[in-house]
Amino acid sequence: MHLYDSTIPSGNAYKVQLLLSHLRTPYTTTSLNILSTPPETRSSQFLALNPNGRIPVLVLDDGTPLAESNAILFYLAEGTAYLPDDRIARAQVLQWLFFEQYSHEPYIAVWKYRTYWHPTGFSDLTSPQITTLKERGQAALEVMERHLAGRDWFVGTAYSIADIALYAYTSAAEAVEFSVGANVAAWLRRVEGTEGWVRIKKDETGKNPN
Amino acid sequence: MHLYDSTIPSGNAYKVQLLLSHLRTPYTTTSLNILSTPPETRSSQFLALNPNGRIPVLVLDDGTPLAESNAILFYLAEGTAYLPDDRIARAQVLQWLFFEQYSHEPYIAVWKYRTYWHPTGFSDLTSPQITTLKERGQAALEVMERHLAGRDWFVGTAYSIADIALYAYTSAAEAVEFSVGANVAAWLRRVEGTEGWVRIKKDETGKNPN
Repeated sequence: MHLYDSTIPSGNAYKVQLLLSHLRTPYTTTSLNILSTPPETRSSQFLALNPNGRIPVLVLDDGTPLAESNAILFYLAEGTAYLPDDRIARAQVLQWLFFEQYSHEPYIAVWKYRTYWHPTGFSDLTSPQITTLKERGQAALEVMERHLAGRDWFVGTAYSIADIALYAYTSAAEAVEFSVGANVAAWLRRVEGTEGWVRIKKDETGKNPN
Repeated sequence: MHLYDSTIPSGNAYKVQLLLSHLRTPYTTTSLNILSTPPETRSSQFLALNPNGRIPVLVLDDGTPLAESNAILFYLAEGTAYLPDDRIARAQVLQWLFFEQYSHEPYIAVWKYRTYWHPTGFSDLTSPQITTLKERGQAALEVMERHLAGRDWFVGTAYSIADIALYAYTSAAEAVEFSVGANVAAWLRRVEGTEGWVRIKKDETGKNPN
């Protein structure tokens, strides 16, 4: 399999890299520059793989390209210990995957990108909008904190792709000035203790806070 | 089953209503007021069903609450004609479901909400931000237009929950001043010709553009 990620380490690509590490599945990688003009993710060759022009894309051995990090996680996890067989539990995993993409990533990942990676920061946002961005990211962390009360993992009693998807950007949250409660902090450490866990990559200069 | 939706017709709740209509599955409904202070979706009773405080929530017959419209669609469609059995095709359905929630709904649904339903409109946005919101919604429609060239449905050769999820807000796009290409327009008509299709509901005053 071949994974397209970006030269700036992407939490969305990291999700896939983490699961492939757990599964001990070998793969090759191409890292695209998303800051060039135009970004390398908007080339006609890449748009043929993902018409939405975003990494990650995983190209399967038969040549089929799959986009959207959480759809790739689901594909890879089917039939493994990282996705439950039970129909309701699988739907609960998907509930957290959609929560991550709708209510968590657009705030915490965007905050990290703007404060840590992006050259222009918040110049296009008004002050109330910056506050809202931070508040919504923090609200997502509070939802996680309450859900993890008395629970080790997001769904059922086993580590799953729900945990992997939420771990990717939550592991950076404290480094970019969100506050992380005791339940979330303990869960982050549990994820880091799983067999095959790997840290997110650094950029070409060795930089990445988590 | 019992569905929580909102008094303002929600495209996300409509996805579930449309699939339940296709499946001829009976259900009851509670419509919550999301414009009250605080919104009825933030009551402690409702937060016990969905810690993220959003509709739709489907409560299964055993009492399990499921949140996130596209997770609910996946749950209901498993084992039916609306979700393929093939592992790659199922991942492609999920790819479009995540595209819908990340790259489509946050622009087209938000545009509809702000221009059609919301009392305050764009008062908190700058002029370039309003332009960006519209452009990103239009870009999602262009991705759909290109993908549908030579295709009847989003994945494979059958109508699936990928089409249902994308139909919900795309069916309102032209009414709220996005432009819809010929492929998307023909696909909207194909969805409307499927067995069991129902229109999205109106609000209490009979209002809704699609």
